Amino acid sequence: MEVDEVVCLPKLSRVAVCGGTHGNELSGVYLVRELVKVDKKAVEKKAEEEEPASVLMVLSNPRAIQQGQRYVDTDLNRCFTHAILNGPMLDTAPYEMIRSRELNGMLGPKGSPEAVDLVCDLHNTTANMGLCLIAYSDCDWICLHIFRHLQRQMSGIPLRYIHFDVSNKESYSLDSVGKHGFAMEIGPQPHSVVRSNIYTAMKLGVQHMLDWVRSFNSGRIFEGGFVDVFTMVKHIDYPRDSETQNITAAIHPQLQDRDFCLLHPGDPLFQTFSGETLTYKGHQPLYPFFINECAYYEKGIALSLARRKRVMVPAIRVQTEQEQRANEPRYTSEEEE
Amino acid sequence: MEVDEVVCLPKLSRVAVCGGTHGNELSGVYLVRELVKVDKKAVEKKAEEEEPASVLMVLSNPRAIQQGQRYVDTDLNRCFTHAILNGPMLDTAPYEMIRSRELNGMLGPKGSPEAVDLVCDLHNTTANMGLCLIAYSDCDWICLHIFRHLQRQMSGIPLRYIHFDVSNKESYSLDSVGKHGFAMEIGPQPHSVVRSNIYTAMKLGVQHMLDWVRSFNSGRIFEGGFVDVFTMVKHIDYPRDSETQNITAAIHPQLQDRDFCLLHPGDPLFQTFSGETLTYKGHQPLYPFFINECAYYEKGIALSLARRKRVMVPAIRVQTEQEQRANEPRYTSEEEE
Repeated sequence: MEVDEVVCLPKLSRVAVCGGTHGNELSGVYLVRELVKVDKKAVEKKAEEEEPASVLMVLSNPRAIQQGQRYVDTDLNRCFTHAILNGPMLDTAPYEMIRSRELNGMLGPKGSPEAVDLVCDLHNTTANMGLCLIAYSDCDWICLHIFRHLQRQMSGIPLRYIHFDVSNKESYSLDSVGKHGFAMEIGPQPHSVVRSNIYTAMKLGVQHMLDWVRSFNSGRIFEGGFVDVFTMVKHIDYPRDSETQNITAAIHPQLQDRDFCLLHPGDPLFQTFSGETLTYKGHQPLYPFFINECAYYEKGIALSLARRKRVMVPAIRVQTEQEQRANEPRYTSEEEE
Repeated sequence: MEVDEVVCLPKLSRVAVCGGTHGNELSGVYLVRELVKVDKKAVEKKAEEEEPASVLMVLSNPRAIQQGQRYVDTDLNRCFTHAILNGPMLDTAPYEMIRSRELNGMLGPKGSPEAVDLVCDLHNTTANMGLCLIAYSDCDWICLHIFRHLQRQMSGIPLRYIHFDVSNKESYSLDSVGKHGFAMEIGPQPHSVVRSNIYTAMKLGVQHMLDWVRSFNSGRIFEGGFVDVFTMVKHIDYPRDSETQNITAAIHPQLQDRDFCLLHPGDPLFQTFSGETLTYKGHQPLYPFFINECAYYEKGIALSLARRKRVMVPAIRVQTEQEQRANEPRYTSEEEE
């Protein structure tokens, strides 16, 4: 691809902003409720001059929100694989498996031309991760341009782009239902707590994202450039007692809160409850993230490790109506770039 | 009382260290498990030279710990009033009401001569409170001397003494079962997470507390001095929607994490989800604490406010065996000072 080539992509007519996919991640819950309240006034105000997009606000897991829990029966944000969405459904299915199909009906069907153009799913973490966009692609120019826009617009909070290298079929999270999609993950915030600074960062992130979508739809050309992408390589579990499976150590104080600071072989990783230091035994330096995320104790993840690479993002603009008509079959796949 | 008078108090023969009274406050859970493991070795090591105390380690709410929740049916740490411990018990009683009677049998009965001498109940908070001892008395010289000892021994974490002015009969928490007792509350730590720095501070706090008890029992005289005591005055709830009862604001970013920093009338208190600042309308400056504690959303507490006063703590020593025999009836009351 030539550096000065402008990639033309379909219009983003329908955008979904989802909160409460995990019922105890409160910034997204309160932000979606707030956006619903002001929907008719503030959010659409900018649409006067620029091309509007229809914005759907969704509280993804109302029962879990009601109970103040991450989930009722099982993690909703692992229920959007093709297998779960399209397999047989028993009467005794967990609530979240039923709910994932409802959401797939509203926002999808996943992988189909009817799916919404963009899903932004709001999450909080107890890890010191700042604001991260987490996506399944390192070449989804829409997601990467939105990320670049947030980088330009937002100060006071570090921003990163995380890539989970999983196929569309195996992808499991709500944001995979849209033609484009990402989780907007912000921390540190304890679950079942809302902190003003984290709430405000999320609110700004969503506002800037919607601004960008309207600007894109209105025909503006966005220049290309580089983005640092953190691709997940592996997870590391806590040391555990072989009999009870209870953890026997916590994240080392020198690693705690140092998400995205390069971890070298031999660096402190854990401190056992008796006070011993355990070091990182890997063979290469990698970037830790999701360090000491509350909800991942049960998943056997103390932290995740990523490799960083620089991705060249091309200039993009929206397709003209004529181009869009000519390209319509491409809608059925996510590989339009 | 003369300044140079030495108050003689009964020996502290039996001490209970309790963790997991709230099942998702993990420092205490892992610390009690660790102390049980090393009980026969490290904890009693110091006992060779000094007068030993029998130390009972208790996991208070095993079912809640197992489930990773604060409680199963109701907050265990509100189930130790005389009314709940001594009232009629239905078969359908909440689990924690049954468990509070079991614990009262193990560590009490509350208010009786058979009760353990000291209960140290381990807690975590999401608030930025450092290490606090929370007690029902501002003149329990044992608790106040232990606090002074921790102040002398521990650096790197702020220490405060909080006083809830509630009668022994109405006192509701596990630590009220002992002749002396306090909650050791440490934060900030998200619930269902363990952070090494918080765990280590708790471990040191417990070790220094037990060191002090052994030293006291061995006959050492502890000099008097002053302690700043924060007496709880009132709680403030979040602004709420009158219909849904959902909160409509979070703690203001200028107040968040500023526990024990004097709050003046007119200071920012909340930031609404639409971005408005709400100020403190009180008539006097007070000290905020438990700012944005996760578990208190459901109790209608956004923060608590305290008045600070300076308490003169007298010199103390343990009673001789002869003094103790002469004073034995005083055991039945907590007002032996």
